[in-house]
Amino acid sequence: MDNDLNLTQHISKKFNQELEDVRNQVLKMGGIVEQQVTDGLIALLEGDANLGKMVVERDTQVNLMEVEIDEKCTEILARRQPAASDLRLMVSIIKTITDLERIGDEAEKLGDNAMKVHQESNDGRQFMELRNLGESVKKMLRRSLDAYARMDVDEALSIIKSDIYINEEFDNISRLLLVKMMEDPREIKHALRVSWCARALERIGDHSKNICEYIVYLVKGKDVRHTSLDDL
Amino acid sequence: MDNDLNLTQHISKKFNQELEDVRNQVLKMGGIVEQQVTDGLIALLEGDANLGKMVVERDTQVNLMEVEIDEKCTEILARRQPAASDLRLMVSIIKTITDLERIGDEAEKLGDNAMKVHQESNDGRQFMELRNLGESVKKMLRRSLDAYARMDVDEALSIIKSDIYINEEFDNISRLLLVKMMEDPREIKHALRVSWCARALERIGDHSKNICEYIVYLVKGKDVRHTSLDDL
Repeated sequence: MDNDLNLTQHISKKFNQELEDVRNQVLKMGGIVEQQVTDGLIALLEGDANLGKMVVERDTQVNLMEVEIDEKCTEILARRQPAASDLRLMVSIIKTITDLERIGDEAEKLGDNAMKVHQESNDGRQFMELRNLGESVKKMLRRSLDAYARMDVDEALSIIKSDIYINEEFDNISRLLLVKMMEDPREIKHALRVSWCARALERIGDHSKNICEYIVYLVKGKDVRHTSLDDL
Repeated sequence: MDNDLNLTQHISKKFNQELEDVRNQVLKMGGIVEQQVTDGLIALLEGDANLGKMVVERDTQVNLMEVEIDEKCTEILARRQPAASDLRLMVSIIKTITDLERIGDEAEKLGDNAMKVHQESNDGRQFMELRNLGESVKKMLRRSLDAYARMDVDEALSIIKSDIYINEEFDNISRLLLVKMMEDPREIKHALRVSWCARALERIGDHSKNICEYIVYLVKGKDVRHTSLDDL
C-alpha cells in the first residue's frame, strides 16, 4: 500500500481493522464482478446458455454487496468521524462500489444475451466480433482492480489513458456490424444484439476508468475527473 | 422540507448555512442538467445543429459543478464531522451529483447527434420516433428534481415505479426501428443513430430513478436499491 495513505497510523487498532475490513470487502466484490464479466463473455463466446443464466442469477449477490458495503461505510463515517485520508478512503469506496455494481449490471446483460441466443443455438461464433474487445476490457478491469488493491497511482493513470483503445475497438466493431447489416438485412436483428453486447463491454471499460480515477483522488487528494492528464 | 430531516436544528447556524448552500448548489446543478436535456431534445427534434453544439459545449460546466460540490462535501465531512441525518445528506449528495453528471453526459450525446445530423439536413422529423419518449423522460427528470427539492418520499417512490413505462416505451421504439431497418437497409445507419439517442433517453430515466432512491434513503434511512418497493 502506498505510504501517502498512512492507513496504518491510527491510534485505534480497532479502527484500522474496520478500514481494512471494508477495503477487503471491496476487493472481494471486485473479484466477484470480474468473474461475472469473465463468465458472461465465456457464455457468449462459447455458446453456453446455462452459464449465461448463472451470471444473471448471481447479479443479485453483487447488488447486495453494494448495499452492505455502503451501509458499513456510512456507519464508520458516523461512528469514527474520520478525517483527511481516511475520509477520502470512505468517499472513494462509496464511489467505487457504485461502479462495481454497474459493471455487474453490464455483465448481467452479457449473460442475458448468451442465455437468449444460445438457448436456440449454441454457436459461439455468433459473437466472435466481441472476442478482442472482450479480452481488452477484461484486462483493463483486472488491471484496475489490481491497481486498487495496491493503490498504485502510476498504474491507475496509465489505465485511464488506455480507455481510448477500448473506445477505438468499439468503434471498429460498430462499423463492421453496420456493413454487415447493410449487406444482409436478415442479419440486422442479430447484429443489433452483438452491438448491445459491445456497448456493455465498452461501458465496463468506462467504469474501470472511473475506479482508476478514484485511486488517484484517494492517493493524491486530487480530482482527475474531467481534467487533462498531462498536468499530473 | 420533510421534518424527518431536522436540517434546521443545528447548534451552529453556520453549519446550517453550509448544508443549505451545498443543497442549493445541487438544485442549481439539477436545473442546468434539466436544461441540457431539454435543449438536447429540441436540437434533435427541431433540427437545430447550433443548439446541439451549445449543449455539447455546456457539458463542461456540468462536469465542473460535480467536482466543486464533491469537494465541498468532503470538506464539510472533514471539518464538521456530521452524524446521522446530516451524514446521510452528505452521502446522498455525493451520489446524486454522480447521477446528475451522467445525465449531463447523455444530454451531451443528444446534442452531439443533433449537431452531426442537422449540419447536413435540419429536418427534425428524422428523430420523430423520440418525441414521446423524450417527453416522458423530461417529465420524469423534472419530477425527480422537484421531489429532491421538497424531499418528498411518496413522490420519489411513485417516480421509481414509473420507470417501467420509460423502459416499455424504449422497447417499443427499438422494435419500430428494427422493422424500419429490415424494410429498408438504406435506413440502417440513421435508425442506429436514433436508437443510440433512445438509449441515452432511457438511461436518463435510470439516473432519475437513482436520484429518487437517494431521496428515500435520505429521509427514511433505508436503502431501497435492489429491493421490492412493496415492502415500503
